Amino acid sequence: MNKIITISRQFGSGGREVGKRLADKLNYAYYDKELINAVAKESHLSEEYIEKYSEAALSRSFPLVFGNSFYSYSIQPSEQVQIAQSKVMLELAHKGDSIFVGRCADYVLSESNPFKIFIYASNMDFRIERCYRRVSEEKIKSEKEMKKKILKIDKQRAAYYEFYADKKWSAVGNYNLCIDTSKFGVKGTVDIIIAALNTCN
Amino acid sequence: MNKIITISRQFGSGGREVGKRLADKLNYAYYDKELINAVAKESHLSEEYIEKYSEAALSRSFPLVFGNSFYSYSIQPSEQVQIAQSKVMLELAHKGDSIFVGRCADYVLSESNPFKIFIYASNMDFRIERCYRRVSEEKIKSEKEMKKKILKIDKQRAAYYEFYADKKWSAVGNYNLCIDTSKFGVKGTVDIIIAALNTCN
Repeated sequence: MNKIITISRQFGSGGREVGKRLADKLNYAYYDKELINAVAKESHLSEEYIEKYSEAALSRSFPLVFGNSFYSYSIQPSEQVQIAQSKVMLELAHKGDSIFVGRCADYVLSESNPFKIFIYASNMDFRIERCYRRVSEEKIKSEKEMKKKILKIDKQRAAYYEFYADKKWSAVGNYNLCIDTSKFGVKGTVDIIIAALNTCN
Repeated sequence: MNKIITISRQFGSGGREVGKRLADKLNYAYYDKELINAVAKESHLSEEYIEKYSEAALSRSFPLVFGNSFYSYSIQPSEQVQIAQSKVMLELAHKGDSIFVGRCADYVLSESNPFKIFIYASNMDFRIERCYRRVSEEKIKSEKEMKKKILKIDKQRAAYYEFYADKKWSAVGNYNLCIDTSKFGVKGTVDIIIAALNTCN
């Protein structure tokens, strides 16, 4: 069986960078936004549409469609993307050792017995600073606004995870290792993960 | 400043054993139940009394005492123990490099900038088996009963932490590293912590 690592991450904690560096060190395939193109090919949906809905929970306000005497349910965009995305992830996980970031990968790939990591930063300033560096082109001016954005995206990720995996996002019991990047830095976090992988070999 | 490690732990996850082994490897002092004797000396309370209330939350049903026109509050046993315990922990933390298990140590010793660890086991069977080994003399017969006991003690620890530290027990953001002993074993967990410590040096 291929070795699969899944990374869930708080927004701005550096989870994507941790995953990329880890993939380079281990020579694993790496899938985060890289999935979008493959999902587009699989589903014939546009890349923009997939990006918009790839980690979105169901909308409560989405209309339900009732037919004659039978209940008829109209599929939502996020479900449409989740179905195609899950199919692609399962195929890729069968191809070789891989790291998947976000997208309920720990749940979707549970039969591959993944090594499940949660990346967070206990220090909010660390996240704000990382976000400023990343989105300097955005018109986000104050730290207060940036914090609001960070917490909003975390909330969306939590709702998405809770809807599709039916488990609480960020709850320790859903992961094997949870690491605070604001304590160890991105490089240190990668070193800890490699030490953890070595204990399992 | 002395190096301080605090370990919070789910019941049955092996947190105490992790702490002891780590203290041996690092040559740090180790305090878990070992605190009870020192607290007894400090407070003149009995060891049994301290053990009973050392990680107990306030009781909601504890009577409040009202004096004449002034509100008078009668100190609860758990508060009495927590005050003496905190004083002893602060003194010990000033004596040398130490590991403290439980007892809101991360909160009590926050000014020492401790390395904060949460030990858990995502696999309940792992915890049940550890508890059976440890309490074979107890008359706990079924796995169901053992699981009930484990969850009850976790609930008490959570209530205690939430009361005194005013934070959510087991929430990742309160710790620097959260490790699943049912994935890595006690020995592997110690290795991971040492790798993490090395990244900070």
